[in-house]
Amino acid sequence: MNELELIQLLTRNLPTNDSVVTGAGDDCAVLDLGIPERFLLFKTDAIVEGIHFTRETPPEKIGRKVLARCLSDIAAMAGSASAALVTIALPKEFDPEFVKSIYTGLNALAQRFGVAIVGGETTTNPERILISIALLGTVAKEKCIRRHGSKPGDAIFVTGHLGGSIEGHHLDFEPRLAEARWLADHFTPTSMIDLSDGLAGDLRHLLERDQLGAELLKTAIPISRVAKLKAKAESPAKPPLLAALTDGEDFELLFTVPSRVAVSLLDGWRKQFPDVALTCIGKISATPGVRLRDKDGYKPMPAHGYVHFA
Amino acid sequence: MNELELIQLLTRNLPTNDSVVTGAGDDCAVLDLGIPERFLLFKTDAIVEGIHFTRETPPEKIGRKVLARCLSDIAAMAGSASAALVTIALPKEFDPEFVKSIYTGLNALAQRFGVAIVGGETTTNPERILISIALLGTVAKEKCIRRHGSKPGDAIFVTGHLGGSIEGHHLDFEPRLAEARWLADHFTPTSMIDLSDGLAGDLRHLLERDQLGAELLKTAIPISRVAKLKAKAESPAKPPLLAALTDGEDFELLFTVPSRVAVSLLDGWRKQFPDVALTCIGKISATPGVRLRDKDGYKPMPAHGYVHFA
Repeated sequence: MNELELIQLLTRNLPTNDSVVTGAGDDCAVLDLGIPERFLLFKTDAIVEGIHFTRETPPEKIGRKVLARCLSDIAAMAGSASAALVTIALPKEFDPEFVKSIYTGLNALAQRFGVAIVGGETTTNPERILISIALLGTVAKEKCIRRHGSKPGDAIFVTGHLGGSIEGHHLDFEPRLAEARWLADHFTPTSMIDLSDGLAGDLRHLLERDQLGAELLKTAIPISRVAKLKAKAESPAKPPLLAALTDGEDFELLFTVPSRVAVSLLDGWRKQFPDVALTCIGKISATPGVRLRDKDGYKPMPAHGYVHFA
Repeated sequence: MNELELIQLLTRNLPTNDSVVTGAGDDCAVLDLGIPERFLLFKTDAIVEGIHFTRETPPEKIGRKVLARCLSDIAAMAGSASAALVTIALPKEFDPEFVKSIYTGLNALAQRFGVAIVGGETTTNPERILISIALLGTVAKEKCIRRHGSKPGDAIFVTGHLGGSIEGHHLDFEPRLAEARWLADHFTPTSMIDLSDGLAGDLRHLLERDQLGAELLKTAIPISRVAKLKAKAESPAKPPLLAALTDGEDFELLFTVPSRVAVSLLDGWRKQFPDVALTCIGKISATPGVRLRDKDGYKPMPAHGYVHFA
């Protein structure tokens, strides 16, 4: 059983109550606990030694990463982060300096985004370090952007450049909180998600509920310099486009807006965030499935991103 | 470095913001995010295979336990639980039925206490199962009970019977949510904590901030039947009193009230919760340290609970 099948199994018939606006299945859970005009956003995320980082990873970056991942999910709903709890599971013989440095990196990022660290839990995991964050945020009710909500014809945008995150971006990325709030304040995006598993897979989450499709323009996909360099350096090389479509941990925003606002969005964005790339990569279609267009026409693009071009 | 020293190291100079009412160091973090008249309670807790449960533990009880532990912390502040996220880290070769049963137990308890399960996270921990819960609750601002707040002369009460939890109680205990709310509604307790590390240690948390002490009456400590049976069955035996003072995972409430309400509290409790024992075990004193009184007088009781009686 793979992770997706497991999640499907476990999220069936979950207990619920009147406070739940959106349960499992979006970037954050959305709750209405009576804050006037605002929803609560609630998210948890974990990273594990040997999988998301190694003993060679600078510890400050480990701490930074685990919080940044969660912040990226708050960003994906156009929210603001408020407070976090940190759970750290450690082998019995841990290095206090290493652990302290994890918190140094985590706390510095928290400080920068105004997030209070309000406690947590230490426990034992004999073989490896595991860190889990629980993060609370809020969002204005009418500004909360979900994964679903796009309509055929909507323009699809992505921030930054994609692919090759494993080379370092996954430890240094900037959660796009300010960008997402600005977007929600000025352009009513119709759907949004942060890219954690790769564009080809994550785009499906915007289409699922309403059985929509998407048409992407091959030459428009913003490929990172790192993905291009890797392709030159490695043999056999992963084509840079494939890296941009399928590499995980980009933590960029993928969102849709009505096509009529696409041009003014690009104009406004360049003024507001001159250092953050924003690219229109295609549009939502009524026909299910994702298709990639090049000079020879459209080709279906499976979730794993492999498209065979002549 | 032990766990306490680590926590002291990590909770120094944590980032904070205006929403924080109580950060690290109480049963839950307390936040004011603008819910009229109410605080948010925020708590996380983790259990690990081989430490808090084994592969032989019925999986329903594993799921029940991890949520019940967190609920007990919400109870300790007289709150109500609203929503939880579940993080489960699994070896690659997991048994889907085992994992499903963990959720069955967890969901059943959530349902019973009106808690919505609003998502979470699955990840890999190659050697053992680890489950972490992040729980949100709320409490009326004027009813929120902290660990600190007791005054010299206050009566000290404990629910249930203590000791020997490892024999089964740690998998079956009832989080005392209704009891705690009733208490806060009718008797303004001055401080409260749930017993997770044992009475002798946890009592210190009620005394710390204001450098108070406590005098306990040896014959009043409610010892569980299991602790008494274990003492008879085992050799060398742990004296039942010592088990009641130091065994972990009782998850009962320890709290203080002004002495003038002690009698009416006991009367009211017996009518309201006839099946839950409530015992006055002593009183708060202005002199720091915990002392245990028997027929020969007072003896100091160290945090590890060992007291040598003639």
